[in-house]
Amino acid sequence: MTINLPKKIAIIGVGLIGGSIALGLKKALGDKISVSGSCSDLKRAQRAQKMGIIDEIISPDKRSLTDCSLVIISTPINSVITTVKQLIPLLAPNTLMIDVSSTKRIICEEINKFLPVNLFFLGTHPMAGSELSGFENASADLFTNKPWIVCPNQETRRNNLLPIKSLIQILKAKPIIMTPAQHDKLVAWASHLFLIVSSILVSAVSKQSRWEEIARIASTGFCDTTRLASHDPDLKTEIIKTNKKNITDCLLKVRNEIDDFIILLEQNRFRDIRQYMNKTKSVRDNYLNDYCH
Amino acid sequence: MTINLPKKIAIIGVGLIGGSIALGLKKALGDKISVSGSCSDLKRAQRAQKMGIIDEIISPDKRSLTDCSLVIISTPINSVITTVKQLIPLLAPNTLMIDVSSTKRIICEEINKFLPVNLFFLGTHPMAGSELSGFENASADLFTNKPWIVCPNQETRRNNLLPIKSLIQILKAKPIIMTPAQHDKLVAWASHLFLIVSSILVSAVSKQSRWEEIARIASTGFCDTTRLASHDPDLKTEIIKTNKKNITDCLLKVRNEIDDFIILLEQNRFRDIRQYMNKTKSVRDNYLNDYCH
Repeated sequence: MTINLPKKIAIIGVGLIGGSIALGLKKALGDKISVSGSCSDLKRAQRAQKMGIIDEIISPDKRSLTDCSLVIISTPINSVITTVKQLIPLLAPNTLMIDVSSTKRIICEEINKFLPVNLFFLGTHPMAGSELSGFENASADLFTNKPWIVCPNQETRRNNLLPIKSLIQILKAKPIIMTPAQHDKLVAWASHLFLIVSSILVSAVSKQSRWEEIARIASTGFCDTTRLASHDPDLKTEIIKTNKKNITDCLLKVRNEIDDFIILLEQNRFRDIRQYMNKTKSVRDNYLNDYCH
Repeated sequence: MTINLPKKIAIIGVGLIGGSIALGLKKALGDKISVSGSCSDLKRAQRAQKMGIIDEIISPDKRSLTDCSLVIISTPINSVITTVKQLIPLLAPNTLMIDVSSTKRIICEEINKFLPVNLFFLGTHPMAGSELSGFENASADLFTNKPWIVCPNQETRRNNLLPIKSLIQILKAKPIIMTPAQHDKLVAWASHLFLIVSSILVSAVSKQSRWEEIARIASTGFCDTTRLASHDPDLKTEIIKTNKKNITDCLLKVRNEIDDFIILLEQNRFRDIRQYMNKTKSVRDNYLNDYCH
């Protein structure tokens, strides 16, 4: 594998994802890579440095970024655009910025509106995460065998794709290329829908007057189906804000699917119901077989 | 603990649940209990005996049941009523039968219609299980700390509750008493809803023309939220058949909850959405704290 990464990279926002990128690069490349990083506050950054996750702390004036030709922005979604704006006057010409957040169309469109021609931005999204956050939970292997979506647009040059493909391969993830709009549509179905439906189910059940008694007898089925209801509410809200149309479309289709199922029930079509259960079981079992090794 | 169990009990249908009851009793009581059992066919029963799960095989004519004063019926839901009918002429007076299936009202009502006055039946439901089936996956600890619902009706005598409470305590489960109708209503929300919604979600997602691409990028969120879609389709269909009204009610309420959420989305009420996500997170986190130790 030819390594197309610069020797020094910067990570703005060293949390679970940023920290795992740093650890994964160090595990694979050792001293051949140097990682500068910043956190929400200086104390956190000092702790990340002490833990060996980053080599250098990016100073508050961010002057040290002038010698980083690759900057990874792993802040919360609602800070990505502002962060890029703030970085522009500080970066050397031809620097490439990427983000790693869960929605892509709005971020890529907005940034392209003001990005100078001598700087580059590429939206990406590693499909890996956890209910736990912070670099304390980071892992060099977080991305192993996970999809990592890369969203070039018409302005993206081949030269800018190469280092990112290299980054993804070093972290043992699987690069998948699609446009920002395609990303938001497919990820709404693959991920965002479940982040929201889990909460909708918890809301519906816990509104029942006998919720306390229901909770007492609920077991692993309730626990697993609603696991994502425990994810970060701020992250969920930002995802919903920036992918509203696609998420609404998913929810409407699930609602129609429930309506169709209720018709089967009301018409006592138990043979069709058995077939429905057989089919959805084999779809999920095949998915596990094909993608979860 | 006073043990009110007879020294010999019978288990009709030694599978995951029946096998786990047998193993749990043997682990706690050793030689003080003898378990006779039957399976769907003789070869399976012989294998269960060889594995030490049961002590004796119930003969096809079931004559040996005359000396068992407690019979546990752990067949599939749709065989419980027929099994009780077939057992009636073979049992000694005052024998108590219990079942362990996932719905209770229809089973208890139907059996009460034909049960002779000198025999007893009590519906019960251990809230434990697995995607795996068969006595090969049975475990003496399957019921530890799990709720085990017991559904007496007006005919149930105190004398019949005692051995069942004893059984549940020996298996380290938590007995919870409610009527068959209450059971079916609460369990629809605590368990049946999730068995069905998981399949509805798989159906909605896999109907998308780009399902193959969605599957390629789906990750742990999809996997966990839809886990129950891989459960036994026959069991699900029997649950739906025998608890149709309550399940329809749950699905209608979830559908309305989705409709209400779509309104929040369409009206850009992101502050309310954040609050919704905060609230459902705290409901689920509290549930984990209170019930999942």
